Amino acid sequence: MDNVNIEALANAVLGKIFIELEASGRHVHVTKEQSQLLFGHSLTPKRPLSQPGQFLANERVTVRGPRGELQNVAVLGPERKEAQVEISLTDGRTLGIDPPIRPSGNVTGSPGVQLMGPNGQITLPQGVIAAQRHIHMAPGDAAHMGVQDKQVVKLQVFTKRPLIFEDVVVRVNPDYATYAHLDYDEANACGFQPGDLGRILP
Amino acid sequence: MDNVNIEALANAVLGKIFIELEASGRHVHVTKEQSQLLFGHSLTPKRPLSQPGQFLANERVTVRGPRGELQNVAVLGPERKEAQVEISLTDGRTLGIDPPIRPSGNVTGSPGVQLMGPNGQITLPQGVIAAQRHIHMAPGDAAHMGVQDKQVVKLQVFTKRPLIFEDVVVRVNPDYATYAHLDYDEANACGFQPGDLGRILP
Repeated sequence: MDNVNIEALANAVLGKIFIELEASGRHVHVTKEQSQLLFGHSLTPKRPLSQPGQFLANERVTVRGPRGELQNVAVLGPERKEAQVEISLTDGRTLGIDPPIRPSGNVTGSPGVQLMGPNGQITLPQGVIAAQRHIHMAPGDAAHMGVQDKQVVKLQVFTKRPLIFEDVVVRVNPDYATYAHLDYDEANACGFQPGDLGRILP
Repeated sequence: MDNVNIEALANAVLGKIFIELEASGRHVHVTKEQSQLLFGHSLTPKRPLSQPGQFLANERVTVRGPRGELQNVAVLGPERKEAQVEISLTDGRTLGIDPPIRPSGNVTGSPGVQLMGPNGQITLPQGVIAAQRHIHMAPGDAAHMGVQDKQVVKLQVFTKRPLIFEDVVVRVNPDYATYAHLDYDEANACGFQPGDLGRILP
C-alpha cells in the first residue's frame, strides 16, 4: 500500500463513492447453436459471476488465430445472440490478431477467429475485441455518484501502481452490480489485487 | 486517434513539454563474468537504444522460473556491476515469480531466476523486478519542464486508450535522452503505438 493515496481512498470510502475493481480474463461468449456444435450441449454453470445471472461455464474452448492459439479459455453464460471473444492486446499478439477496443456487444467488422471444443470447431467471421474498460453500475449507485448511462469518466484506482484510467464508460442497468472491469493488461499495469478499489474523478 | 485529447496534445507540443513514450520489453542485464559464462564472450552490440551508450546485444538468453520459462529474451549492454532481469507482471505469471515493482538497479531481496545461454547457465539469487515506470530526462528538458531528479509525477499519455500514470519517477542525468519508459502491460493498457507522446501533468 506504499504508493496508495490514502487520503483520497479514505474520502472515497467515507463518501460511499468507491467502486470495487475486477479483472476480466480472456473469455468467450457463444450462441446456443454454437454451444451445441462445440460441446454437444448447452453451457453448464460452474460458478456465478459478479453480474447477476451471469456465470462461468464448466465448458472451455481453444481460440486459434493466424499466429497462435490460446488454450483452455473461459466461456461465460448464459448463451448470447452473437458470439464474442474478449481478449487483451497481449493475447492479440499471441493469436496474431489486432483486436479493436470496443464496448461489449459491438463486434461488427471485428476480426474473426477459430473456436475449438471437445465436440467440434467453428469459424467466427467476426467477434474478437478488446473490451473497452467500463463500469457496470446499479441505478442507485449511479444516482449517488451523479453519473449517467454511457457517460465517459475518469477512474482513479487505489492500487500498488496507481493510475487514472481516462475514457471509462459507465453502463447503468437495473441488472448490474457496481464493479469496474479491467482487462489483464490494465490490471497488471496498475498492479491490481482482488478487493482493490477505485473512484470516479469529478 | 478518436479518443485522444487533441487540445491537450496540441498544447503539450506547442509548449515543448511533450515526452516521447517507449515500451520496454522484457530484458536482462548481466555482468562481464556472467556474459563469459553464458555466451563465452562479452556482449556484442546489435543496435543502439534510445539511451546514449546503451545497446541491444546480439546475445539472447532463456529465463527459467519455478513455473515456466521465457525464451529468446533480449540482453542489453554494456555489462553492469550486477545482474537484473526486468519483466512484466504478465511475464511473472508465466515464470511463477511475483516481481516487486522497483526502480532499475534496486534488486536487493528481489526473487532469483535461472539464465541459460548457449555456453552455460547461471542461477541468480536475486535480480528479478518489474521496472517502476519512469522518465529518463536530459537536464535541459528537466529545467524546461520544471522537474527534478527523483521527482514523482503524473504522466498523461495521448494514446488510443488514454490514461494518466501516477507515481512515475523522473530520472535526470546528462547521459539521458528524454523518454518515458513503460513496460508491455502498461503499453497495452494504454494502447501505445510507436511515436505516441505524453506530458507531465502540473
